[in-house]
Amino acid sequence: MMRMRSIALALSLLLPRMTCAQPPGGSEADRAALFAVDAEFSAAAQKIGIAEAFVRYADPEATMLPPGENAVTGAGGIRAQFAGMPAAATLAWKPVKAEVAASGDLGYTLGTYEMRSTDAEGKPVVRYGKYCSVWKKQKDGSWKWAVDVGTPSPPPK
Amino acid sequence: MMRMRSIALALSLLLPRMTCAQPPGGSEADRAALFAVDAEFSAAAQKIGIAEAFVRYADPEATMLPPGENAVTGAGGIRAQFAGMPAAATLAWKPVKAEVAASGDLGYTLGTYEMRSTDAEGKPVVRYGKYCSVWKKQKDGSWKWAVDVGTPSPPPK
Repeated sequence: MMRMRSIALALSLLLPRMTCAQPPGGSEADRAALFAVDAEFSAAAQKIGIAEAFVRYADPEATMLPPGENAVTGAGGIRAQFAGMPAAATLAWKPVKAEVAASGDLGYTLGTYEMRSTDAEGKPVVRYGKYCSVWKKQKDGSWKWAVDVGTPSPPPK
Repeated sequence: MMRMRSIALALSLLLPRMTCAQPPGGSEADRAALFAVDAEFSAAAQKIGIAEAFVRYADPEATMLPPGENAVTGAGGIRAQFAGMPAAATLAWKPVKAEVAASGDLGYTLGTYEMRSTDAEGKPVVRYGKYCSVWKKQKDGSWKWAVDVGTPSPPPK
């Protein structure tokens, strides 16, 4: 827990305007659990690929709001959304905030992401952004994302 | 209520991939209330201006995730975010979905927006997009947005 806090603190220093708010309802344990799930979700994207990780962690009616495109819902839509990405691209993210309802069935995370790929000449390209994910507790007790939306950010200074 | 459902249905036909999910926890009354607050928020943006409406409906630690910029938190940040918009620009949106936690303290809305302005030659410009807002129930029982993030969409066909 201390380690997670230290990571959150370090990230909040990098993103000073995204401060940790006083949470409204859920327990500290719920918030820590959701924070951990979002971090685990990013680790899964490195291991099994971005599209498969998004599908694996998706609520059955999960909706993505990709910039410049229409909203996408469900596993087929999610896979199609990532189909155009270069095979070597990686997407990694870090939650900086998690809040959970008092009832423990709904929560959200905020964080930052880095997408690494290569341009037409093979030169590495890094794109930075931030995201909000809304999460729903499933019947089996696991958290799955119900909404995912990210927007580009300027490179960190 | 029937009327709200009809509007939601009509909008979901316009946005067929953003279907109405089976909600997890909150009551139908809670969802209808949050849906209504988001619609009222849009009406306020027409009446008192976009920035003032965003400030009025903001949780004290509200965070926006504007595309191409860093995250913005708090009233000062929200006002600054809209400061660059043309004075005559209007932003109107319509929620198509609302879900609320069983505890009634956290919820989110999804919807579509239209931003109307004029270009350098005075020609009308309409930009389309979609958004997700996370909402927190305040101590006084009102809903305020805690996270707001929108992304551009192609013009409707």
